[in-house]
Amino acid sequence: MMKKKIKSVISLLSVVDRLKNIYAGGAVMYSKRSRKIHPYVPGEQPSDRVYIKLNANENPYPPVPDFKKVISDFDYSLYARYPDPECGLLSEKIAKLLNVEKDMVFCGNGSDEVLSFVFYAFFDDDKPLLSPEFSYSFYPVYSEFYGIPLKRIPLAPDYSVDLDGYLGGDSSGVIFANPNAPTGINLSCEYIRNFLTRYSGDKIVVVDEAYVDFGGESVIPLLKDFNNLVVLRTFSKSGSFAGGRLGFAVSSPENIGVLKAVKNSFNHFPVDILAQKLGITICENWDYYKENALKIAFTRDNFSRELKRLGFDVLPSKANFVFVKKTGIPGKTLYEIAKEEGFLIRYFDIPGIRDFVRISVGTDNEMKGLIEIFKRNFSRL
Amino acid sequence: MMKKKIKSVISLLSVVDRLKNIYAGGAVMYSKRSRKIHPYVPGEQPSDRVYIKLNANENPYPPVPDFKKVISDFDYSLYARYPDPECGLLSEKIAKLLNVEKDMVFCGNGSDEVLSFVFYAFFDDDKPLLSPEFSYSFYPVYSEFYGIPLKRIPLAPDYSVDLDGYLGGDSSGVIFANPNAPTGINLSCEYIRNFLTRYSGDKIVVVDEAYVDFGGESVIPLLKDFNNLVVLRTFSKSGSFAGGRLGFAVSSPENIGVLKAVKNSFNHFPVDILAQKLGITICENWDYYKENALKIAFTRDNFSRELKRLGFDVLPSKANFVFVKKTGIPGKTLYEIAKEEGFLIRYFDIPGIRDFVRISVGTDNEMKGLIEIFKRNFSRL
Repeated sequence: MMKKKIKSVISLLSVVDRLKNIYAGGAVMYSKRSRKIHPYVPGEQPSDRVYIKLNANENPYPPVPDFKKVISDFDYSLYARYPDPECGLLSEKIAKLLNVEKDMVFCGNGSDEVLSFVFYAFFDDDKPLLSPEFSYSFYPVYSEFYGIPLKRIPLAPDYSVDLDGYLGGDSSGVIFANPNAPTGINLSCEYIRNFLTRYSGDKIVVVDEAYVDFGGESVIPLLKDFNNLVVLRTFSKSGSFAGGRLGFAVSSPENIGVLKAVKNSFNHFPVDILAQKLGITICENWDYYKENALKIAFTRDNFSRELKRLGFDVLPSKANFVFVKKTGIPGKTLYEIAKEEGFLIRYFDIPGIRDFVRISVGTDNEMKGLIEIFKRNFSRL
Repeated sequence: MMKKKIKSVISLLSVVDRLKNIYAGGAVMYSKRSRKIHPYVPGEQPSDRVYIKLNANENPYPPVPDFKKVISDFDYSLYARYPDPECGLLSEKIAKLLNVEKDMVFCGNGSDEVLSFVFYAFFDDDKPLLSPEFSYSFYPVYSEFYGIPLKRIPLAPDYSVDLDGYLGGDSSGVIFANPNAPTGINLSCEYIRNFLTRYSGDKIVVVDEAYVDFGGESVIPLLKDFNNLVVLRTFSKSGSFAGGRLGFAVSSPENIGVLKAVKNSFNHFPVDILAQKLGITICENWDYYKENALKIAFTRDNFSRELKRLGFDVLPSKANFVFVKKTGIPGKTLYEIAKEEGFLIRYFDIPGIRDFVRISVGTDNEMKGLIEIFKRNFSRL
């Protein structure tokens, strides 16, 4: 079983190799800046067979049934015209949901795009941006993309983000995910407030709350006290809308104004007209999505207990994934065992977390299926 | 009539002013790079009344009727999953349409996003990028965004792009639109081939063919001879899909590989799942769109003749807009006359083209309506 070739990993590697070959080809037509980047690699999407995808932190539940009607009622002739560049109505709905003002919301084509604008707008190239040693692996990619030095601060021994390590020394700002990825560990709002009172008030602190709806604690209530706080959100996870590309930043109207200027220097209309409409539908049916998030949290906690029974170490997750290891078995092996049986999970070939795998939380049945596989494999060992 | 306040222009100005105020506020939390940008300003979208919009070069005809079925048949549960990051099937369809290989196509969230990636990937900050003095006004915005010096080469006396002016002297590459905007003037494929044989083969030449389907001549057949050629296309104009955000670059597989790496360092999934599907529908029904483009070209030529009869100077356009002036009447006045009567057209408050207005070509009836307005106003003068 272990000898089976992992085709998709090989094909990902060959993308990087191919790129090296292109640059090595002696052509001088690529910019110096583009020769320095290391693209982000997301969870694989192999097509050699049908897999249960637990590798991209997607939501196992479909969008609210209202989608059906909104989509079929949509007047497709509107596609001929440019969409609202500022996502006015959608921003209003999101603001209402989060209990903030409309001009405190900035919408983009997924929170990845919004994050990229945040890096451009707020962080400079002469001082380090501070970020956890292990966090969303796109942060170092953006840093390289814009030439922003990144200083990676070690996690605490329990793998939580230790914000004391971010004080002292000069910095351009701070970014971390809360709950953090890939650990799933959450910091309390009070703990982050305490950090903000001690950190420089004229440097931006970004809290990426992509996973907050699965049991984390949001810092949005702190926005009224801290003008340097920027909160990132996405509908890709709790909103079951990864395919529709909708993410947003919440911050002071001034910070949002700068993000809009950056957006308007890149792509005036990043969110398509139907995605804006469906984003509104998500806001108007938020109870449905909250209920799904609760279901996922419940499944996650059951799954975590089962894994512990099988001897796994399970970090305490408040996200829609768990980060786990089994002493003596490399993360890559766990990944291969699962893939052989039709389950895609994710491991990171990075020193310090090589023993772990990150498993997205699917439906109850999917997680039971994976538990069965681990049971079978580890009783045979 | 002339005294009426032009609200939307004032509100656009105030965006820039507000930004200045934000930066002047003494906050040090905005990056040095973000303090230098001058965002692009698109055609206004005022909501004080219903206008006939002839200011954003949108297509007056709706998407193909097949859209209805594709949209209502769409399985909305797919929104919960990430889309194909490489737009595989769509790229295949586009490649077939253009008679190139699939790996020569790069799709993005509108050609504005693709253009931004092109600037990042191919142009450096130590040598000037060459571009016409008057062309798509987003080019200087991207240059500032990435810190790429832009050298603007004057147009020929007849307002055409004079490529002889791009030879000699050191440069980082060349970009122009063909047909050019806002002039609408087209260069022949032979003329561009001749330029390419004389220009450095190891620097990228971008030909932005956003408007080519309305009567221009594409340089896509030249791709087999010139590895340094990058052709930009969009479905926003001839594809009646401005609201769906779909643009693409066509070039050598190596250049496309670099664009993909840049994309994957910015936003892995820029094109949403339904937009990819509808892009395929556009490709499969291209005859419908070609026919609309022909209708628009026919309307444009009639409209141009009528304007000339009224004493306008009309540049010879092969695009879905015309660039026109009337001696003695500033462009702003023409704009105000049209707006007063419910027609939005565009003028540019820029030395050298202040006398002109750019009028998008709508339906026959819309253009007749505008001709009537000009007739009434100029018989009164």
